[in-house]
Amino acid sequence: MASPFILVNLKCYPESIGNRARHIAAAAQDVSAESGVSIGVAPMFMDIHPLSFHFDIPVYSQHVDGVAPGAFTGHVTAEALKQAGAKGSLVNHSERRLTIASIESAIGSCKKNGLGTVACSNNEATSAALAALKPDYVAIEPPELIGSGISVSKANPEIIRGSVKAVREVDPEVKILTGAGIQSGECVRIAVDLGTDGVLLASSVVKAKDPAAVLRDLVSLL
Amino acid sequence: MASPFILVNLKCYPESIGNRARHIAAAAQDVSAESGVSIGVAPMFMDIHPLSFHFDIPVYSQHVDGVAPGAFTGHVTAEALKQAGAKGSLVNHSERRLTIASIESAIGSCKKNGLGTVACSNNEATSAALAALKPDYVAIEPPELIGSGISVSKANPEIIRGSVKAVREVDPEVKILTGAGIQSGECVRIAVDLGTDGVLLASSVVKAKDPAAVLRDLVSLL
Amino acid sequence: MASPFILVNLKCYPESIGNRARHIAAAAQDVSAESGVSIGVAPMFMDIHPLSFHFDIPVYSQHVDGVAPGAFTGHVTAEALKQAGAKGSLVNHSERRLTIASIESAIGSCKKNGLGTVACSNNEATSAALAALKPDYVAIEPPELIGSGISVSKANPEIIRGSVKAVREVDPEVKILTGAGIQSGECVRIAVDLGTDGVLLASSVVKAKDPAAVLRDLVSLL
Amino acid sequence: MASPFILVNLKCYPESIGNRARHIAAAAQDVSAESGVSIGVAPMFMDIHPLSFHFDIPVYSQHVDGVAPGAFTGHVTAEALKQAGAKGSLVNHSERRLTIASIESAIGSCKKNGLGTVACSNNEATSAALAALKPDYVAIEPPELIGSGISVSKANPEIIRGSVKAVREVDPEVKILTGAGIQSGECVRIAVDLGTDGVLLASSVVKAKDPAAVLRDLVSLL
Repeated sequence: MASPFILVNLKCYPESIGNRARHIAAAAQDVSAESGVSIGVAPMFMDIHPLSFHFDIPVYSQHVDGVAPGAFTGHVTAEALKQAGAKGSLVNHSERRLTIASIESAIGSCKKNGLGTVACSNNEATSAALAALKPDYVAIEPPELIGSGISVSKANPEIIRGSVKAVREVDPEVKILTGAGIQSGECVRIAVDLGTDGVLLASSVVKAKDPAAVLRDLVSLL
Repeated sequence: MASPFILVNLKCYPESIGNRARHIAAAAQDVSAESGVSIGVAPMFMDIHPLSFHFDIPVYSQHVDGVAPGAFTGHVTAEALKQAGAKGSLVNHSERRLTIASIESAIGSCKKNGLGTVACSNNEATSAALAALKPDYVAIEPPELIGSGISVSKANPEIIRGSVKAVREVDPEVKILTGAGIQSGECVRIAVDLGTDGVLLASSVVKAKDPAAVLRDLVSLL
Repeated sequence: MASPFILVNLKCYPESIGNRARHIAAAAQDVSAESGVSIGVAPMFMDIHPLSFHFDIPVYSQHVDGVAPGAFTGHVTAEALKQAGAKGSLVNHSERRLTIASIESAIGSCKKNGLGTVACSNNEATSAALAALKPDYVAIEPPELIGSGISVSKANPEIIRGSVKAVREVDPEVKILTGAGIQSGECVRIAVDLGTDGVLLASSVVKAKDPAAVLRDLVSLL
Repeated sequence: MASPFILVNLKCYPESIGNRARHIAAAAQDVSAESGVSIGVAPMFMDIHPLSFHFDIPVYSQHVDGVAPGAFTGHVTAEALKQAGAKGSLVNHSERRLTIASIESAIGSCKKNGLGTVACSNNEATSAALAALKPDYVAIEPPELIGSGISVSKANPEIIRGSVKAVREVDPEVKILTGAGIQSGECVRIAVDLGTDGVLLASSVVKAKDPAAVLRDLVSLL
């Protein structure tokens, strides 16, 4: 079995721009090296290039537009992400929702460019629908728990179990991340025990005084 | 086997407001009565109430928002559609695309209110994804053929075959409509022979001098 | 000086569909007849036709798309609103925000069809910008006060004064409505004394047990 | 009088990623140094940091979200643009249209962070409305001429004259760029003679075999 994947969404927090993004990425690289667990970061677009250049961890984009290179302004193409050094992208995060046609084309563009995809869902039915679009991962994030400090692993394991079942029925090869409220090694352990392949999290790492300490705790029970 | 379903999207054409919408609905009712084929219309929101009141054919909305009744402005709730006499709604037409979360909640709201749903897809992958959200129908409409005068039945039967297969694999109970460029009885016949349950069409009926004649042709080979 | 205008946005509340919309419109017609104050209602799209037919008060749409009649699905054209009996439309309500290009074309389409426009702003700067697009009214609704039960007239008269000044500087012919939290005759009186031409309100009328009583109070100090 | 400003929108063209963006920025720097004319570039987000670091020309973002730093995913904050070295941003390009509330908050965020703003309009009325939001520049780009090879300076000087007048009436301190179809020194000369402060252009530079030659032509009649 592959190592679980821990993906840290840096969002647009004041604590995650520039120097501070670098600090979190360094912590991710250290803890990943110590533990053997794959830990990635998803910074704002402008930090993708420098973080990809300076670190040996997977750098993800927070968003990608499924358009071919051309006359678009303010868009983010998979081709450009690839050139900037990204290894993948979030798609359809609840803070940047997309039409189903755009999700499909974004996943397609990423595949064509060798980028991984983490498609975010808000409940069991959308998890199943996203699985049909064949991303690498579906990340299940009940919106009401995002940033809540309440872990979905503990508060609502049923939505995880139900989503795992729904995703497996549609396509057993699509992997699954547990998201929303993840903050400790125990949350990660439960997420893995429920049959998912890792976690997607944000504030508990980004807003920590010592991100490395939080990351060490997250991998401690694997 | 149930009768095929023919759904005429009246769009916002100058030929489909007010009196003219009534004229098309009357034609649909006549041809439906003669042929036994179920023919519905999807007028602009303001014509839903009068058409539902005056005719015995299924009247669909062109769009529905999956929000519960509340403090929303310019939205269309399933509850209000039900009260206005609608029997169902298009969801995610390529001219009114929705996020996957909105599609899921719109289908859920319609079910709760006893309304049928026709979810529109643009290719095989989104057809499969939509099927996972369990609408009554998935309508396959390659955007490049909408309003083109080129029938998808003839120009691209492969996308229909592929979508039928993809939808059946995800959920065999979801029915399928063939859309885009449908204009004759032959198109409808091919659509049914390819395993779909009817057609979704617009301009060839709405812009016809004699909508009843076009509708009679559409059902002629069933 | 023209009578102030009171516009009741019925939103999508459970209390404002079908029969209940009719009840509120009847109250508006009665109080308008008694007081000589112009009172309009903005129901959901499906109720525009029946309310326009049965009552002699201005019926507004909650939204309008600035597109010419054509191949659009789920849109609302000014032409269709006119046919349905509407006298005008809200444009850019904070619950249905539009791009600046869409606001401009929506106001243009309404003018071409003889429909009034109430363009909603969220602060002084957008009030001035909207005035440059020459709607009949700019309605100032600080989003944080909408539905709050806290009247903008009392809580933030400065935003009203500032917006009046900003709008007048751009175009002195554009009229102004005060919105957000309006609930009593005193609120309306203050709104008029601050130099605005009426009020836009919703929940205090729609959710009242006796809408007519609330409306009578609203006009009591004019 | 200040030097005219020439801003090259690199869009998402295959010819404007990575190395090629660097090539265009180098050309802009050379021609700017030779001519004394200010020439900026607006690359995709990921290229803002490296281009700002390596070149002494103004680097603009193609888009900015007017949100304060926080829990947003896939957004672009003014704070992050500033850290990445940007000097300003396009706002509301016709290929990335924004609500009026978002335009207002984006301009505000940029001002707070010392970034310049170029707000794009599609006609005279929106030019006036944008001027009321006090960006540094309003760029007038009739959408039908963008990428057309037909210069707005020659094809429709009236829209430029009308927009200049409309903008000046609202706020004489807002500067104006002429956009859409600009391709030669003659176009730039006409734009300046019509009273505007420079040009916004894209394909004629980005898709040129020799961008420096095109840029030299653009400044040749100033």
